[in-house]
Amino acid sequence: MKRKVMLCCAITGGSDNHLKSDAVPVSPAAIIESALGAAAAGASIVHVHVRDPETGKASMALDLYRKVYDAIRAGAPDLVINLTTGIGGRYVPGTDDVLVPGPGTTLSSPRARAQHVAALRPDACSLDMGTMNLGSAAFINTPSHIAEIAAMARTAGAIAELEVFDAGGIELAKAMIADGRLDGPGLFQLCMGVSWGAPATPASLMFLASLLPPDALWFAFGVGRHQFPIVAQTILLGGHVRVGLEDNLYLDLGVPAQTNAQLVEKAGDIIRLLGCDVATTAEARQMLTTARVPVAA
Amino acid sequence: MKRKVMLCCAITGGSDNHLKSDAVPVSPAAIIESALGAAAAGASIVHVHVRDPETGKASMALDLYRKVYDAIRAGAPDLVINLTTGIGGRYVPGTDDVLVPGPGTTLSSPRARAQHVAALRPDACSLDMGTMNLGSAAFINTPSHIAEIAAMARTAGAIAELEVFDAGGIELAKAMIADGRLDGPGLFQLCMGVSWGAPATPASLMFLASLLPPDALWFAFGVGRHQFPIVAQTILLGGHVRVGLEDNLYLDLGVPAQTNAQLVEKAGDIIRLLGCDVATTAEARQMLTTARVPVAA
Amino acid sequence: MKRKVMLCCAITGGSDNHLKSDAVPVSPAAIIESALGAAAAGASIVHVHVRDPETGKASMALDLYRKVYDAIRAGAPDLVINLTTGIGGRYVPGTDDVLVPGPGTTLSSPRARAQHVAALRPDACSLDMGTMNLGSAAFINTPSHIAEIAAMARTAGAIAELEVFDAGGIELAKAMIADGRLDGPGLFQLCMGVSWGAPATPASLMFLASLLPPDALWFAFGVGRHQFPIVAQTILLGGHVRVGLEDNLYLDLGVPAQTNAQLVEKAGDIIRLLGCDVATTAEARQMLTTARVPVAA
Amino acid sequence: MKRKVMLCCAITGGSDNHLKSDAVPVSPAAIIESALGAAAAGASIVHVHVRDPETGKASMALDLYRKVYDAIRAGAPDLVINLTTGIGGRYVPGTDDVLVPGPGTTLSSPRARAQHVAALRPDACSLDMGTMNLGSAAFINTPSHIAEIAAMARTAGAIAELEVFDAGGIELAKAMIADGRLDGPGLFQLCMGVSWGAPATPASLMFLASLLPPDALWFAFGVGRHQFPIVAQTILLGGHVRVGLEDNLYLDLGVPAQTNAQLVEKAGDIIRLLGCDVATTAEARQMLTTARVPVAA
Ligand SMILES: [Zn+2]
Ligand SMILES: [Zn+2]
Ligand SMILES: [Zn+2]
Ligand SMILES: [Zn+2]
Repeated sequence: MKRKVMLCCAITGGSDNHLKSDAVPVSPAAIIESALGAAAAGASIVHVHVRDPETGKASMALDLYRKVYDAIRAGAPDLVINLTTGIGGRYVPGTDDVLVPGPGTTLSSPRARAQHVAALRPDACSLDMGTMNLGSAAFINTPSHIAEIAAMARTAGAIAELEVFDAGGIELAKAMIADGRLDGPGLFQLCMGVSWGAPATPASLMFLASLLPPDALWFAFGVGRHQFPIVAQTILLGGHVRVGLEDNLYLDLGVPAQTNAQLVEKAGDIIRLLGCDVATTAEARQMLTTARVPVAA
Repeated sequence: MKRKVMLCCAITGGSDNHLKSDAVPVSPAAIIESALGAAAAGASIVHVHVRDPETGKASMALDLYRKVYDAIRAGAPDLVINLTTGIGGRYVPGTDDVLVPGPGTTLSSPRARAQHVAALRPDACSLDMGTMNLGSAAFINTPSHIAEIAAMARTAGAIAELEVFDAGGIELAKAMIADGRLDGPGLFQLCMGVSWGAPATPASLMFLASLLPPDALWFAFGVGRHQFPIVAQTILLGGHVRVGLEDNLYLDLGVPAQTNAQLVEKAGDIIRLLGCDVATTAEARQMLTTARVPVAA
Repeated sequence: MKRKVMLCCAITGGSDNHLKSDAVPVSPAAIIESALGAAAAGASIVHVHVRDPETGKASMALDLYRKVYDAIRAGAPDLVINLTTGIGGRYVPGTDDVLVPGPGTTLSSPRARAQHVAALRPDACSLDMGTMNLGSAAFINTPSHIAEIAAMARTAGAIAELEVFDAGGIELAKAMIADGRLDGPGLFQLCMGVSWGAPATPASLMFLASLLPPDALWFAFGVGRHQFPIVAQTILLGGHVRVGLEDNLYLDLGVPAQTNAQLVEKAGDIIRLLGCDVATTAEARQMLTTARVPVAA
Repeated sequence: MKRKVMLCCAITGGSDNHLKSDAVPVSPAAIIESALGAAAAGASIVHVHVRDPETGKASMALDLYRKVYDAIRAGAPDLVINLTTGIGGRYVPGTDDVLVPGPGTTLSSPRARAQHVAALRPDACSLDMGTMNLGSAAFINTPSHIAEIAAMARTAGAIAELEVFDAGGIELAKAMIADGRLDGPGLFQLCMGVSWGAPATPASLMFLASLLPPDALWFAFGVGRHQFPIVAQTILLGGHVRVGLEDNLYLDLGVPAQTNAQLVEKAGDIIRLLGCDVATTAEARQMLTTARVPVAA
């Protein structure tokens, strides 16, 4: 039997990608349409951010999340929906006084960062495993902040998808699984090629995957031109894949993607050419369950 | 001819190790004595922090640095002296308001963190390549902060020793070497097993070393019980080594180290058993020069 | 610009694959047709064996090689043609006396194994780098036999494609390049998953590729169900690919390949999905030249 | 508790090393003395060949084996004794007719190669996993020959130590464990840097070790100047070590070893410096037992 590969689509993200491509959905309606299009193209999971419809900037507004979540749920009842908790982590030290937050700072309490998870009780939510430079800013996720979001997710019945940007994030996750603050064996997302995390190379992905807990479920994605190479490398190493406009704007060299669905279709082609099948939403839900990480029905 | 391996000793560090072992030098006099003892035992480089003599806590006080630096320089004129710039990077988000610094925060301006380098013009100074969780706190080193300390080090004629805790730190370093903010090919220190960076395993060290710029000079160390295994692994992979009470308090399982000199001697034994020689201070200075990273005479 | 990936098709091989699938071409006419079909489907290189039309067994008959070679050359003037020298290497120790060759033995002199290369002067010929168990038999290629075939290939203007089954084969190749018996930097074919050579896994291919001389050109293939995964892994690692009925009889799980062309087309799809282009025959000839390994015009 | 590392000494081997160093023991008396010296220096296992006292060449004479075996057993009753079965595998194709064995050929039946194991019933015997080029000759160990020696070893109550020179040897061993021809999980000896097997590098050893069956016991050694680096690398990766004049003639660069005991002592120093203890013979016997590979009492 062929291995079933879960295919996740990251619909829009929170970066300024929308300034580089009109394909990046901004309004709730556009995000909903793009998510349902990705699902129709074969994605069993969507990873969802919301954006301020006026500015296009990442938003943490509950009403936006609710509108988007409810409509996707209604349009694709079986689809696994993963809401981000990654917004609200940036700290830019002030120029004159490093302890006065500079422009670009979004650092917020864990409670604020995950309030939509508590309210909407999605199947899953992302959980960033660690503190790092994200481009020129500090992206702060201390162990106690992580633990607080994890506790909220657990209460809400949402699986925490542990987003890892480097080896240390896996080490921290294992320690927090060991002390009970995270559920094991864990659902991981290896984020490859993010500035400044681990590079998006075969050796890098192989090394990170080697650190994961036995029996952990894992996804990986590569940013930009690494998106499809990392899809292939992940399949070859036994993982599950993520594509989407959050991570990459191009379908091919010089060919902008028009929709998330196109990226999902291309990933599906790679999955099939490498001897696997795209997991259905039912199969994805089952797999998430067998990892002993409860998924909301 | 045998390969010459540089042996660096990290004398005291800035953590609360002094509470766990009386061997950790705290007063300027103790730090000076321990550094000179390490040099006598074969270290060609010492990596130096200072501590508040009253509290034992890490200090950035220039007068302490000056006292220690001048005495080590006087006592060992050829020794390569590396002063830390790692103090002043911690940020602990406040419990009530994450934008109000909580207890344990030391976050300071780059200018404050490297003022002793500007003043004392040591051979080298450490430069932490990136932002991470250091235990339970955020340790913040944004690219612009790194660039500012690097510029100060360059002006002072000090080689920046790039302290790397994970793959992303090397990626950032390469980008900053490429854009001229750091000097290449670079002098790296791979810090293995720090919570929460890359683990101190052979595969981990091999992966990190594989990412370094060609022709870069590199050291590595492991924390705690990984200190001597990482010494051996580093020698086998072609790097240079660091030991010392900053990183490890034990000479062997259950045998506390009494002095830095003991750790240096043991590292020297490993270097020799693996077919190499300990570099003299003259050889170390020469090697640092041939990496095209100027070292103050 | 996209990377150009050379696509080689191994048309029929010398094993008993023809007993398992009618698609495996046996007669000269069938081999010629299958090779031209592969070329039409995008292969820039064909790797060719001949078989006894009566028995289907591997043959070293010059007239068979000549018939096949001339017809492929006529039908596809620019196609790079690689003739095997792998037949004539098996030794099966006798049951009663191990020094009396047992059934299945084909061990022949290097001169006999490469006489068709001397006569036909193809673009390239395979050259097996080493002695190993091939299934239950010994496959004997001593350094002096290798050197003799290499000398004949050089005289004939044929590039020796160094077929490697394990790490030791690369070590031997490097030593023979260093002593001038082989041309460097070398054209390698990494044969993955052959019993009993290195396994067809990502880590295995990555390790073997890491041993190659800098600037060497390299291909890889996987046997059986590993064929397309190894195509993808090879592209990701910067190599060139080989598929074909010599190595694998299935287009997909449970779906026998009908032709070599189908396998070539599928490999081409993978190449394109991973952001590369299939090299034309002209591009392949150019690449082979730039490796400073002369290719017959 | 410290990990116990088994230390094996390969006393003399079968190559022409005795022409390069007078320290290589040739006569039975010299071999016995050297083995007992190695045991006194800390070796828990000795790997023993015998040589023709007149010519110094490798011998398969039972009386020589008996004399040596009995005296070592008498002198060190608890020492684990491993007798080679590696002699009798060379085939040098004739110059005029490759099927007429040329000078240097020793190829013998499995029965002849292991008759001393059947007669003497040692604790263990080596068993070469595969066919390869050994220098300029073919070294032939077909699966059926391996199986026959393994069956003789099993009958004699001797553990088969599976000598592996490359990845393919481990793949063959796993297949033969799976089909019952070899006992699992297996006792492996990874032979690094032999011409022409896998090179003696950290990456190479790490890759080979990664292929071993879970729970297998494993040793490794490096030839020549790689002996002590591979000792260290093996310890770091969790294996057991082998040194001895069979593999290496030098105690240090330019310093010939005078005795096997010196090499054993140096390996012991490395074991202890890396935080382990040298296993006693009793501990070695226990470890060999717990791998579920029966060891003769
Ligand atoms: Zn996201
Ligand atoms: Zn420090
Ligand atoms: Zn072939
Ligand atoms: Zn031996």
